[in-house]
Amino acid sequence: MFPGAIADREVADYVLLGAPLDISTSFQPGTRFGPNRIRRFAESFDDYDRRTDQFFTDLRVHDAGDVRAWDDAPEYVEWLAGSVRDAVWDDAVPIVLGGEHTVTAAGVTGVEPDVFVCLDAHLDLRREYDGNEWSHATVTRRVLDELGVDEAVILGARTGSPGEWKRAEAGDVTVVEPEAVPDWEPDFDDDQSVYLSVDIDAADPAFAPGTGTKEPFGLTSREMRDAVRAVAPRADGFDVVEVNDRDDGQAASLAAKLLREFVFSHAAEWADE
Amino acid sequence: MFPGAIADREVADYVLLGAPLDISTSFQPGTRFGPNRIRRFAESFDDYDRRTDQFFTDLRVHDAGDVRAWDDAPEYVEWLAGSVRDAVWDDAVPIVLGGEHTVTAAGVTGVEPDVFVCLDAHLDLRREYDGNEWSHATVTRRVLDELGVDEAVILGARTGSPGEWKRAEAGDVTVVEPEAVPDWEPDFDDDQSVYLSVDIDAADPAFAPGTGTKEPFGLTSREMRDAVRAVAPRADGFDVVEVNDRDDGQAASLAAKLLREFVFSHAAEWADE
Amino acid sequence: MFPGAIADREVADYVLLGAPLDISTSFQPGTRFGPNRIRRFAESFDDYDRRTDQFFTDLRVHDAGDVRAWDDAPEYVEWLAGSVRDAVWDDAVPIVLGGEHTVTAAGVTGVEPDVFVCLDAHLDLRREYDGNEWSHATVTRRVLDELGVDEAVILGARTGSPGEWKRAEAGDVTVVEPEAVPDWEPDFDDDQSVYLSVDIDAADPAFAPGTGTKEPFGLTSREMRDAVRAVAPRADGFDVVEVNDRDDGQAASLAAKLLREFVFSHAAEWADE
Amino acid sequence: MFPGAIADREVADYVLLGAPLDISTSFQPGTRFGPNRIRRFAESFDDYDRRTDQFFTDLRVHDAGDVRAWDDAPEYVEWLAGSVRDAVWDDAVPIVLGGEHTVTAAGVTGVEPDVFVCLDAHLDLRREYDGNEWSHATVTRRVLDELGVDEAVILGARTGSPGEWKRAEAGDVTVVEPEAVPDWEPDFDDDQSVYLSVDIDAADPAFAPGTGTKEPFGLTSREMRDAVRAVAPRADGFDVVEVNDRDDGQAASLAAKLLREFVFSHAAEWADE
Amino acid sequence: MFPGAIADREVADYVLLGAPLDISTSFQPGTRFGPNRIRRFAESFDDYDRRTDQFFTDLRVHDAGDVRAWDDAPEYVEWLAGSVRDAVWDDAVPIVLGGEHTVTAAGVTGVEPDVFVCLDAHLDLRREYDGNEWSHATVTRRVLDELGVDEAVILGARTGSPGEWKRAEAGDVTVVEPEAVPDWEPDFDDDQSVYLSVDIDAADPAFAPGTGTKEPFGLTSREMRDAVRAVAPRADGFDVVEVNDRDDGQAASLAAKLLREFVFSHAAEWADE
Amino acid sequence: MFPGAIADREVADYVLLGAPLDISTSFQPGTRFGPNRIRRFAESFDDYDRRTDQFFTDLRVHDAGDVRAWDDAPEYVEWLAGSVRDAVWDDAVPIVLGGEHTVTAAGVTGVEPDVFVCLDAHLDLRREYDGNEWSHATVTRRVLDELGVDEAVILGARTGSPGEWKRAEAGDVTVVEPEAVPDWEPDFDDDQSVYLSVDIDAADPAFAPGTGTKEPFGLTSREMRDAVRAVAPRADGFDVVEVNDRDDGQAASLAAKLLREFVFSHAAEWADE
Ligand SMILES: [Mn+2]
Ligand SMILES: [Mn+2]
Ligand SMILES: [Mn+2]
Ligand SMILES: [Mn+2]
Ligand SMILES: [Mn+2]
Ligand SMILES: [Mn+2]
Ligand SMILES: [Mn+2]
Ligand SMILES: [Mn+2]
Ligand SMILES: [Mn+2]
Ligand SMILES: [Mn+2]
Ligand SMILES: [Mn+2]
Ligand SMILES: [Mn+2]
Repeated sequence: MFPGAIADREVADYVLLGAPLDISTSFQPGTRFGPNRIRRFAESFDDYDRRTDQFFTDLRVHDAGDVRAWDDAPEYVEWLAGSVRDAVWDDAVPIVLGGEHTVTAAGVTGVEPDVFVCLDAHLDLRREYDGNEWSHATVTRRVLDELGVDEAVILGARTGSPGEWKRAEAGDVTVVEPEAVPDWEPDFDDDQSVYLSVDIDAADPAFAPGTGTKEPFGLTSREMRDAVRAVAPRADGFDVVEVNDRDDGQAASLAAKLLREFVFSHAAEWADE
Repeated sequence: MFPGAIADREVADYVLLGAPLDISTSFQPGTRFGPNRIRRFAESFDDYDRRTDQFFTDLRVHDAGDVRAWDDAPEYVEWLAGSVRDAVWDDAVPIVLGGEHTVTAAGVTGVEPDVFVCLDAHLDLRREYDGNEWSHATVTRRVLDELGVDEAVILGARTGSPGEWKRAEAGDVTVVEPEAVPDWEPDFDDDQSVYLSVDIDAADPAFAPGTGTKEPFGLTSREMRDAVRAVAPRADGFDVVEVNDRDDGQAASLAAKLLREFVFSHAAEWADE
Repeated sequence: MFPGAIADREVADYVLLGAPLDISTSFQPGTRFGPNRIRRFAESFDDYDRRTDQFFTDLRVHDAGDVRAWDDAPEYVEWLAGSVRDAVWDDAVPIVLGGEHTVTAAGVTGVEPDVFVCLDAHLDLRREYDGNEWSHATVTRRVLDELGVDEAVILGARTGSPGEWKRAEAGDVTVVEPEAVPDWEPDFDDDQSVYLSVDIDAADPAFAPGTGTKEPFGLTSREMRDAVRAVAPRADGFDVVEVNDRDDGQAASLAAKLLREFVFSHAAEWADE
Repeated sequence: MFPGAIADREVADYVLLGAPLDISTSFQPGTRFGPNRIRRFAESFDDYDRRTDQFFTDLRVHDAGDVRAWDDAPEYVEWLAGSVRDAVWDDAVPIVLGGEHTVTAAGVTGVEPDVFVCLDAHLDLRREYDGNEWSHATVTRRVLDELGVDEAVILGARTGSPGEWKRAEAGDVTVVEPEAVPDWEPDFDDDQSVYLSVDIDAADPAFAPGTGTKEPFGLTSREMRDAVRAVAPRADGFDVVEVNDRDDGQAASLAAKLLREFVFSHAAEWADE
Repeated sequence: MFPGAIADREVADYVLLGAPLDISTSFQPGTRFGPNRIRRFAESFDDYDRRTDQFFTDLRVHDAGDVRAWDDAPEYVEWLAGSVRDAVWDDAVPIVLGGEHTVTAAGVTGVEPDVFVCLDAHLDLRREYDGNEWSHATVTRRVLDELGVDEAVILGARTGSPGEWKRAEAGDVTVVEPEAVPDWEPDFDDDQSVYLSVDIDAADPAFAPGTGTKEPFGLTSREMRDAVRAVAPRADGFDVVEVNDRDDGQAASLAAKLLREFVFSHAAEWADE
Repeated sequence: MFPGAIADREVADYVLLGAPLDISTSFQPGTRFGPNRIRRFAESFDDYDRRTDQFFTDLRVHDAGDVRAWDDAPEYVEWLAGSVRDAVWDDAVPIVLGGEHTVTAAGVTGVEPDVFVCLDAHLDLRREYDGNEWSHATVTRRVLDELGVDEAVILGARTGSPGEWKRAEAGDVTVVEPEAVPDWEPDFDDDQSVYLSVDIDAADPAFAPGTGTKEPFGLTSREMRDAVRAVAPRADGFDVVEVNDRDDGQAASLAAKLLREFVFSHAAEWADE
């Protein structure tokens, strides 16, 4: 259980779902251990958040455990999307812990947002990667082209194929390079619903070495945090993905903290409702 | 022996004491290996410091080895305080290498400062933690409420319980959040004596992953350094704590360097006396 | 093979040479594994570079594999210099993957530049280290005093012996301290040829823990990148050294990326010629 | 949850209790991570056991999770003993996952056996260790002198203090040195009840490096297994302790397998009742 | 290149093929790094083999590098089988370095043996695992039921599902439990052709911790060796699989040595032909 | 300090000398960390030895610390031999902690034995290795051909070059293959003096993974122990070498234990004198 996620499912405002999918990782595998590693490195955090004056244990977070993964990505994503949708129907905010980025498709399917905001070193705008349409490197493309999202904002992206960069030039994609992230501010319409996805490799490898495809020149931990704080009040779903067990806990620790920042920031906005 | 700490005890201006206490660590243990790990990762540093134009080996630093720890924190702190006091009586500046933060109580007891300056991710202002009054999470509270210190300045703090934050609002506590640390300057009265304690978790986990309770969004190594440089000339005692052996040497390396910055900065101020 | 270095030797514009020399490392050994580790962590990078609109596989890079090292540094450097010179004679830019910094002497011998630009935490201006004239800590001195280079610029240097700092005061050495690196700009004469050497320990240990002599308070990965981008268009030779296998891939990942930045930046300048 | 421990508490024949106590470890700490590490490395085992023709999931094992530890060993042991006793009262066999060996006192308190069989490199017959009566090194002494056990058999013991060896000469202790373990056979009276404790350091460090106090010249994994198989049919309680997270999974994997051997062997004997 | 595998493809008697498939690993992934890790840890072995009085470099071994894997197991196995078949057609003995055990299907497809001898902790006789017919846990079943092999001998097997054990009772399967392996001797008909597959998890985790599904109570390194020596003279194909990078080199080192034992033993038998 | 080595130099019967030479390691370096790692992993051993009924602290062992190494092997060995000779002249038994096997030349030079007994996977009978006469792979040859030793017994050897095996056939060399070690018994003349050297790679990598050139199919820890026990009563000098820091402590733990076995066995024989 994620520390402090003590609410029962029935009364939960936030539902955590572990999604240990780990089949398309291009380089170093291990994201299957991500959900539990994030839970474990969250153990040392205080319950109380000073900035928003809230206790995590008060925010009715439920940890539904892991949705066990198998090796058929589209089937798994569909199955997982069911659990996400259940949470949405119960008026809870779904929070997915990856697992590879592919699982975000389930989060988006369940939440059906208008805008997809993503922290990622990679554009993930491919149609396929190595012949695989369900690779983690296609997730933002899928979100845009198949899951009905109107617009994607990719924060911290610094690499991609020419095809991806071309797709990124379309009107429905905004790419914010790492250097510009500190100055970026969300500018959503009032009626747009938002989903926020954090691929931990958006961070510089110094801050998150435990990920499958390290990409130097990335964001600092504070820059990640500020982006999460900015978007969270508007978001109806959240995930943090691509954490593996191949470091000394930096990636998991950062992921756990960002998840909490999401919950604290979201709850502070919606506390009275 | 800490590299370069070649002075005999009798003539020493600085006395190093290893304090491998490791009993109350909440999450990942291993601070018992901190003192030796700090010594080991100091091996690759140059003797000479350009900024202050001094050789470490000229500064009469003595490494008294480790004060072997056992599992009774109050007894151990009292025993260790005796060694600290011995150094003070011999007009040497005591330098403690933790071990968990609890050992700072010995440093403060021996030095009897007016002001306690601390680099720490945590407020450490609890009365007890998990029923334990001698937890590392109570050390700044103990310093203020029981050890006769007038004032505490906590640099880089970013988490605590409501009770700790409330205690922090009292007139004798100043909390400088991480973002404000670069602009902070010491403002001590001329007659105030100062003690400086560095909990390595003040640093962002990128800079010091080898510590028991990682807390992201922390200080960079240069911000830590500048704070040490600013306070050292006024300090009569120093410690660096909470380094464990669960990383690739980043935490120990940083701790060793900060210890040297302390000595160089202090000695540069007091060289003529 | 370095990923994407698919050109045949005959048509290559860039020739990679692994130089796994690992005999004089003062503290933590392992640079012998550097070349292969850099190659391995380059596997997850995209072929395409957005900034310069180039594919790495188009840039005619050839990986000549490793020049097997033995334990006689001067003999090895001479042998390696032969391979570097061969590349130069074939109008290719030689790129050396260390191995310890000592191997840079081979790169410089082969390239015969006027200016030596170096990213390094250390001055490396000693005549000898521990009685060894061929230690990695003497490489910049050798470059200046024995290899006919007119001028050395050392970026990010923060430590050295008094003798080194004195040598650094001579007119042919420019030292740019870490804090000043972001504002540094190359100012070479038009007819000066340049060699660029990256000792990965120029980076703060947070960004490159896997190196033999960690020196905190160093450069960020972006600062390293910007320096490489600035110098590369003018450089006729390049190396990246001092990466070992004692971290979770951060150092090798950064080194691989800087190597690619060098190639992309150089090729963009010289594409039409 | 331990894989396959799917029974509800009410119908359980075996009740697993995690006991992550980690305060008196003399050398390398980390036993606090033992219970979860054992659970995790059990994931790859088959449900079915060929030798006894049983499925683990059929054997009504319940994993009650961890009994959270704090830093007062006697209080914790008493608290934990309550949970053990509850299991005994419900006619279930309690199985404790350490944590340090100290937790065995809780198992024995709850089970109240006549005979205590222990696999251990150490005699653990001290009255105190480093002034601590509740050290892991005192657990077999406590079992004999304070917990009403008539007789202790220590398998694989190869070290102790003179006082411990003297205590071991008394009629109520049998020490079987490692070389004699393969030939040892239990010889209990029909009316004697038995408790079996496995300190993983009984194994040679080759087979279980992840433990706090490695003691070479120990048992092989098969010798450990055969001892467990021999004793299990007669035992009313079981524990496996002293596994930490400082290896590549060997210790946890062996511990998990021995736990399963215990359950399979016990259940095969008592299947009809 | 595997050290000593210096023969050109055209004249090779043994052809090495790396097969870094890593998609169905149930627990700890990383077999994708197996081939290179095996090559790397072979670097420290002597060229000469005393027992057979042969030099490895004389035995005309060619390392064809890796057959790059993608995520469609059946397609990949078919592709890989092509390379194996090529070697066979050129009268060379194919040697596959896994990668997960699934790749053995390619070796067997290419070699078309009568008898399949396997060192494995697992029976691998499933029809499917977790819904996947191409899981590593199905490979021996595939070999028997689909690839035309008459008979399988599984050495060191100690676990499986009831279905697997039932299949193992059929006349075409011989299971030799770990304890019986030292006394096992091959008893092939003169006209039977043989393929030998080594799943490194046949070894006890002490001898090969770096594998995906550790199974304690396994073989020692010498028992593995003796089995390889016994079968090699009769075998027309060989593989060693399931080595990953999650240990300190024990698994890769053992795998590399067993590969060499295979070549030395085979070549000694066939030297005159 | 090696735990328990509390005697002053003047009264010592055994003098420990750390010899962290690490320049000719062929594959994985790190023996420079061997001496301290052996000391560290000895911390958890009991002072008392049951078999010989002795306390280690009673046996007058002095730890003289490390003889700092530099990169000139012959000079270093000569310098180190001086310290060994000093111990011999003071009627103490010298004990060297490597560092690479090369340092044994210093031990033998100082002790001047008639017989050299060595536990080693390798013959170490080369004249040179990679052009280096002072490689660790030449040490037994040097002992025989240059240091006046009459006879060498190599226990556990399993690999070498043809030249080494040829040299091993001479009358002054006895090679005992690993399988024969358990049955080997020393058969020295009464007037022969003996030196015992333990290269930790004699052990199977399962028992000592932390060494530079792993060689599978080696000795178990108990076989190593029994050989040390058999030879120690007759030996006038001892060393244990080739331990590095690239495992989880198995190699250092075994080395420390063998060193203690040497001292206990030797002292038990000579106690009355
Ligand atoms: Mn992504
Ligand atoms: Mn990404
Ligand atoms: Mn603190
Ligand atoms: Mn803290
Ligand atoms: Mn350098
Ligand atoms: Mn440097
Ligand atoms: Mn015990
Ligand atoms: Mn024990
Ligand atoms: Mn298999
Ligand atoms: Mn298997
Ligand atoms: Mn040797
Ligand atoms: Mn050897």
